[in-house]
Amino acid sequence: MASDPRGKAATLAQRRRLLSSSCRLFFPEDPIKIVRGQGQYMYDEQGEEYIDCINNVAHVGHCHPLVVQAAHEQNQVLNTNSRYLHDNIVDFAQRLSETLPETLCVFYFLNSGSEANDLALRLARQYTGHWDVVVLEHAYHGHLSSLIDISPYKFRDLDGQKEWVHVAPLPDTYRGLYREDHPNPAEAYAGEVKRVVSSAQAQGRQIAAFFAESLPSVGGQIIPPAGYFPEVAKHIHKAGGVFVADEIQVGFGRVGKHFWAFQLQGEDFIPDIVTMGKSIGNGHPVACVATTQAVARAFEATGVEYFNTFGGNPVSCAVGLAVLNVLEKEQLQAHAAHVGSFLMELLRQQKAKHPIIGDIRGVGLFIGVDLIKDEATRTPATKEADYLVSRLKENHILLSTDGPGRNVLKFKPPMCFSLDNVQRVVAKLDAILTDMEEKLRSCETLRSQPCGSPTKPCPSLAAAQPGYPGEPFLFLPTLPHQRPE
Amino acid sequence: MASDPRGKAATLAQRRRLLSSSCRLFFPEDPIKIVRGQGQYMYDEQGEEYIDCINNVAHVGHCHPLVVQAAHEQNQVLNTNSRYLHDNIVDFAQRLSETLPETLCVFYFLNSGSEANDLALRLARQYTGHWDVVVLEHAYHGHLSSLIDISPYKFRDLDGQKEWVHVAPLPDTYRGLYREDHPNPAEAYAGEVKRVVSSAQAQGRQIAAFFAESLPSVGGQIIPPAGYFPEVAKHIHKAGGVFVADEIQVGFGRVGKHFWAFQLQGEDFIPDIVTMGKSIGNGHPVACVATTQAVARAFEATGVEYFNTFGGNPVSCAVGLAVLNVLEKEQLQAHAAHVGSFLMELLRQQKAKHPIIGDIRGVGLFIGVDLIKDEATRTPATKEADYLVSRLKENHILLSTDGPGRNVLKFKPPMCFSLDNVQRVVAKLDAILTDMEEKLRSCETLRSQPCGSPTKPCPSLAAAQPGYPGEPFLFLPTLPHQRPE
Repeated sequence: MASDPRGKAATLAQRRRLLSSSCRLFFPEDPIKIVRGQGQYMYDEQGEEYIDCINNVAHVGHCHPLVVQAAHEQNQVLNTNSRYLHDNIVDFAQRLSETLPETLCVFYFLNSGSEANDLALRLARQYTGHWDVVVLEHAYHGHLSSLIDISPYKFRDLDGQKEWVHVAPLPDTYRGLYREDHPNPAEAYAGEVKRVVSSAQAQGRQIAAFFAESLPSVGGQIIPPAGYFPEVAKHIHKAGGVFVADEIQVGFGRVGKHFWAFQLQGEDFIPDIVTMGKSIGNGHPVACVATTQAVARAFEATGVEYFNTFGGNPVSCAVGLAVLNVLEKEQLQAHAAHVGSFLMELLRQQKAKHPIIGDIRGVGLFIGVDLIKDEATRTPATKEADYLVSRLKENHILLSTDGPGRNVLKFKPPMCFSLDNVQRVVAKLDAILTDMEEKLRSCETLRSQPCGSPTKPCPSLAAAQPGYPGEPFLFLPTLPHQRPE
Repeated sequence: MASDPRGKAATLAQRRRLLSSSCRLFFPEDPIKIVRGQGQYMYDEQGEEYIDCINNVAHVGHCHPLVVQAAHEQNQVLNTNSRYLHDNIVDFAQRLSETLPETLCVFYFLNSGSEANDLALRLARQYTGHWDVVVLEHAYHGHLSSLIDISPYKFRDLDGQKEWVHVAPLPDTYRGLYREDHPNPAEAYAGEVKRVVSSAQAQGRQIAAFFAESLPSVGGQIIPPAGYFPEVAKHIHKAGGVFVADEIQVGFGRVGKHFWAFQLQGEDFIPDIVTMGKSIGNGHPVACVATTQAVARAFEATGVEYFNTFGGNPVSCAVGLAVLNVLEKEQLQAHAAHVGSFLMELLRQQKAKHPIIGDIRGVGLFIGVDLIKDEATRTPATKEADYLVSRLKENHILLSTDGPGRNVLKFKPPMCFSLDNVQRVVAKLDAILTDMEEKLRSCETLRSQPCGSPTKPCPSLAAAQPGYPGEPFLFLPTLPHQRPE
């Protein structure tokens, strides 16, 4: 749909007038207007190119021609609901089933990861006859009412925690309860889930499900220790609940070694329900729930229909099939493993060079760079991360932060991200960190040479940190510039 | 995505193996495999043409070339989330705002009507600080957990009614509490809402919202008496709640006289929240919530972001804009008024001819044909409706039933439905009803000439009703054939 091309300011003004400000922009101080995408690149209205390091929805690359073509071919022929027989929906289910353990063999198609998690919740409750849910700290499972209830990331700021929601510690071996020096963090963190379950049961509650992203993303690009999920599943099954693996952010080959991130947890670990979204349609609104015959049958036994108007329509399924074809044809899972390893390697070199980098963690093209104030406390370097992301954006590299401290740089680029992209991005990261460190040294020198300003930020310091005039010290506690003695 | 073309049986077998049987097919005994759609027609794998009288999602016609082209053009260029500035989302919001009363000026974009109603619920609760919802009997507002809770059509068969949900009588002037002979059914039905609200308040409950489809569809193609919504809104506002008009099934010019069905209720009636889905994208998964500045600001005040991964992406908005363009260019709203009037007229002639037709109600291309056992009791002719729909399908006319008695034939075809389609469909309806009546007479004759079969259906009767051998009497109480005295 061609619109009149217009300047960024005009679009922004219209947006402020017509859309809720609850719908936030990236870089709200100076948002970007993106008019074109291709592969791992995005282009603004001036034609400037940005490297996209964050869009895990454009899984096989922005506007992949084979995916676009598949959508167009099907759009011209038929797009209707799944109450009629159609080959695409069954073919898509078949292809997905080939990527999953054999027991996950019943499929439901929907329009978004949120819809998928909501259905997973309904399935779990129907199957178990229980109501309660165990989730991880700072988890996010979607924007729907039912999912805000099970998303500590959201409910902490809203209505608070429902009595049927139980929060277990994030299995974060860098910043959590049990760290890299623990002999068996998987068992220790699973023990925490057991404790949470027991405590809920002691209050007469009954567990329907444990929900977790296979790799907690909003939680700070966390890689749970291998063996954690199988242990958790034991405790949850014993309590009569089911294990829901939320693969919305991390599925479809992103982790490189495996097609699904839950498979990192052990070859024989099988969730009871798997939810898929985001990358499944490369941006087209499609999502999926896969489950076992037993869970599906319990839901069927209610006699109540599940109907989703757009879910599983021929176009959505054609797009989903095309994404699977491209993944296979371009060997993007192996590519993610290869490029991700290279990125990890270069980032580890950066860690050795820049003390602000506390931890590098990741698998495939799902990587987190945890920025800290100092090694001893591992205090999140929130402002520094924000500043870094802003500087990267000025350098046409799109990255963002996550984690409770909003201090973890998250890499989850389109799967076609290249070795060259890795080099360019890390070189720029290095240059900016080096510049920040130089500024820090200059600030420290300035601090030791008081300018006489009693409480306001020192103008020399502000000048040393363009773009952050109100923030007197980077890497330093926020103190007014020292008064002359 | 081209799949191997295959026979219906093969597709059905694959579907039974891979999809949950909770996802039901139309005509489950003999489902249709649809491989192509164009305008108001669908085509099966044999190339047989069906007239589609029910698909209100394919609003401007299946595979409308301008909508398909808009999707393709945008898909080739960019499809990403709404955290970047883009013209399509603001243009779409602008165009929608031009169709709505001025105060409904803040927009949120989502992927399905269900997502829209869930957000409406969140908005209402945040704005009012209340929790409870008043809905109409047999209402359906979506497949999500939160919406099943406010959908008597669903919750009656599942967990039952939550304490925060209050059900008001359906403003059905044919079959409801106050009928066509009531001097002021609008006020009387609104009074029922007032009573429900008062009763809830007496139990210490506080009303966040009244949710209603502007024309209750699953409820049985109900046309609420004009003036009902404004009266209800008075009572709801007095209780501190908001009025949510669910236009998912009935918006976008379907009612002919107006662009929105709630506008049938009075020129100056304005809901606080309007939800849109289905027809908005002609089958592409897109949806919208429109509300007032006041409601939006209360939601913004939480400081919590609303982010929907696919919602408002450039492709969805391009498709939405294309649908609005086609509606305008082809003057489909006026067309719906014209064709709908003709259909109503021909159906009224049928009513005069066939006693099974108890009521014809509708506006524009939203029409219900209420089938009854007899005029005195208005008992729903459920089996007859089912049989009729099945016969129509054999005649390549796709119709379905709705209403608590599943006895209301519902017409809600693509908006390009033609005068010729009307004539063909009504002629076929007439022929089948005439045939059914002849069979009935023949059955009555057979009944008066007992065959000697003690309890089983009479073979002659069964033969007289092909396709329904197990149902001995059409239009008659289900009795075994009389034994010889």
